Amino acid sequence: MFVIMTYDVGVDRVSKVLKVGRKYLVHIQNSVLEGELSQAQYRALLSEVRRVIREDTDSVRFYVLRTTQYMRVEELGTPRREEGNFL
Amino acid sequence: MFVIMTYDVGVDRVSKVLKVGRKYLVHIQNSVLEGELSQAQYRALLSEVRRVIREDTDSVRFYVLRTTQYMRVEELGTPRREEGNFL
Repeated sequence: MFVIMTYDVGVDRVSKVLKVGRKYLVHIQNSVLEGELSQAQYRALLSEVRRVIREDTDSVRFYVLRTTQYMRVEELGTPRREEGNFL
Repeated sequence: MFVIMTYDVGVDRVSKVLKVGRKYLVHIQNSVLEGELSQAQYRALLSEVRRVIREDTDSVRFYVLRTTQYMRVEELGTPRREEGNFL
């Protein structure tokens, strides 16, 4: 399944959440990661994210797509990619 | 079609991009908006976003889903919603 992970967390937890996210997904944009995961990998990702966030203030959202057959992605401007063209 | 819009733009263009995005979609998280759009609305959104971003430095990404039948959304922590619980 294809997973899009977006997060809005306290500044002192951003690097922790990103570190966990990058173990499973590609960092595609500032607070967005995406990639193909198995059910087990997805469950593991969720439990690791739970351990590093503050439930009362942080927000992490997962769009889980059983197939990408009905999805297309369009980009305006300069794509950010894992290859390090992050500012 | 269901559209997820994520953006990573220069700080002086964030409010402009968000203002355009909110005309069409719900602001769901820091730099994430989502919602159902017609093809015409989607085209209009893209052309308005193009007018406010800098192509060489900004990045705006649109996940366009023809159906949400194969998608589910999971959230950890405290959902951000348009209803104003943005910090």
